[in-house]
Amino acid sequence: MRGTLLYGKGDIRSETLDDPAILEPTDAIIRIAATCVCGSDLWPYRGYRDINEPVPIGHEYCGFVEDVGREVKTIRPGQFVVGSFFASDNTCPHCLNGYQTSCRQVQPIAGAQAQYLRVPHADGTLVATSEKPSDDMLPSLLTTSDVFGTGWFAADAARVKPGNTVVVVGDGAVGLLGVLSAREMGAERIIIMSRHEPRQKLAREFGATDIVAERGEEGVERIKELTKGVGADSTLECVGTQESMLQAIRATRPGGYVSYVGLPHGVRLDGGRLFFTHVHLHGGPAPVRRYLPQLIDMVNEGRVTPGKVFDLTLPLAEVADAYRAMDERRAIKALLMP
Amino acid sequence: MRGTLLYGKGDIRSETLDDPAILEPTDAIIRIAATCVCGSDLWPYRGYRDINEPVPIGHEYCGFVEDVGREVKTIRPGQFVVGSFFASDNTCPHCLNGYQTSCRQVQPIAGAQAQYLRVPHADGTLVATSEKPSDDMLPSLLTTSDVFGTGWFAADAARVKPGNTVVVVGDGAVGLLGVLSAREMGAERIIIMSRHEPRQKLAREFGATDIVAERGEEGVERIKELTKGVGADSTLECVGTQESMLQAIRATRPGGYVSYVGLPHGVRLDGGRLFFTHVHLHGGPAPVRRYLPQLIDMVNEGRVTPGKVFDLTLPLAEVADAYRAMDERRAIKALLMP
Repeated sequence: MRGTLLYGKGDIRSETLDDPAILEPTDAIIRIAATCVCGSDLWPYRGYRDINEPVPIGHEYCGFVEDVGREVKTIRPGQFVVGSFFASDNTCPHCLNGYQTSCRQVQPIAGAQAQYLRVPHADGTLVATSEKPSDDMLPSLLTTSDVFGTGWFAADAARVKPGNTVVVVGDGAVGLLGVLSAREMGAERIIIMSRHEPRQKLAREFGATDIVAERGEEGVERIKELTKGVGADSTLECVGTQESMLQAIRATRPGGYVSYVGLPHGVRLDGGRLFFTHVHLHGGPAPVRRYLPQLIDMVNEGRVTPGKVFDLTLPLAEVADAYRAMDERRAIKALLMP
Repeated sequence: MRGTLLYGKGDIRSETLDDPAILEPTDAIIRIAATCVCGSDLWPYRGYRDINEPVPIGHEYCGFVEDVGREVKTIRPGQFVVGSFFASDNTCPHCLNGYQTSCRQVQPIAGAQAQYLRVPHADGTLVATSEKPSDDMLPSLLTTSDVFGTGWFAADAARVKPGNTVVVVGDGAVGLLGVLSAREMGAERIIIMSRHEPRQKLAREFGATDIVAERGEEGVERIKELTKGVGADSTLECVGTQESMLQAIRATRPGGYVSYVGLPHGVRLDGGRLFFTHVHLHGGPAPVRRYLPQLIDMVNEGRVTPGKVFDLTLPLAEVADAYRAMDERRAIKALLMP
């Protein structure tokens, strides 16, 4: 099959790989209908992780079940499924508490930028749709696998409520879908921090009411001005740097909620300073499995079109171009068609 | 009047000071009926703050209103009142959101270990009781001014719910009243980390179901054993050190809640590690003003006796002995009678 390997910094290749096989009796094999490049794929692509041998990459996927292991009970060949970027059994105490990305049997998905994918814990990880979706639904359905689920978790973890004032830090695909999620949850005012015109446009389409182009201290001041000096009720931190985290915390009112959903890189929080901000803090790898049924329904009902974040579509074989376009911020998010 | 000044590390003195006077038209002067030494008073006493000149100390108080400024509307001379350890107007947006300790006009109370005290923003800060309390009610009423309110906030910020498993890190008066608060909120299992026999005894009396004497890594392992490997739903961090904070976070299940109510000293949180714990984090200086009416009622109805944390009562003049006893952990908390 055609698959994708990351060889090292900036070196990503489309190659012919062995088809995946059932290894555990709880596995399923999926024929990928659509996959894509995640903002988090850019960290290793940019050299933020040591790579000693070529590694399969990609963790966002939807497609058709080809085969299942002998212990798989609910997922059946032929079904169209979407799954989380982390596999989970969906039966352990952490899963039952809604934190499937902390499942006791959690396994990161890797190798989804391919024609076929092995998914562990198929019954726990995958959600089947009732019908085979039309091709034009694929992009939006694909987003529920990670980027929409993560934006939704960001809004949920920041307790967005009807009437709230929400700030979104980060105009990547997750931030943009954080805007969409906050709107769906009834936020009255949604301020996104962005300085890129095409992203600002999409943010407005998704429900942003205000754009703040300033960053750091100036950005925080601008948010304070827009909120009569109070700060936001909820802030979604969708970047993962020290600057973005502090910006998010400082933009939030005492007693407000800050969520963070991008893996923090080099973030250090001073306990004493955090103490006096009085914010609530919650985040982590988004338990998208918790939200999958709901988000798939929202997409199928046509209520939302999160697939608009894909502003570049390429054949899977041109995966290297997709990474380059996202790395250079020429594309918000690249869809790959196997 | 008799008052208390901190001269420097370990040097606390009872002295004759000028009576406080109304300085702002929103002030009240209180004749103190009971005051006490707070765990947080021990930080400057132990030299964790530079002291260049003698400073008035003490911030927990209840007593009778002697005089009020001309703009004070609801508080009247003769009333018995309890107030928060931070003065607040109780009308600004942060106060209305329930975070009075982040009031836009917030002022720390200092000098309550005295016979008289000036309280700014009297209408916002003080809560009057409907009747003059009997002397035996004074200790419990006094706790609502800080230590009980802080324990209550710790349980509330950690979202303690009926049936929960709760861990309390710290067996000081705040931790012990965190236990009491968790019990009142319906926690099923309350595990306190303590290695001091008299404190363990009081913790059990307040509702603790389990005692863990181990600390650090071992303590966390023990909590995991007691919770079938899951971790606590809610953990109240009532110490404020790096060790206690990490212990609290690691004792909590993914999706669980960690509150922290002691001013963190030297606490640094690694964003990447926090990310994968999946805990909720909330804390800060407890907005006890939010809880005062409710807690005063609970005390007056005889439902709780938080005043049991006072295991040493001294005349105000012997304040230095009170500090020594708490510093050497011979007393949990010392009550001072003017």
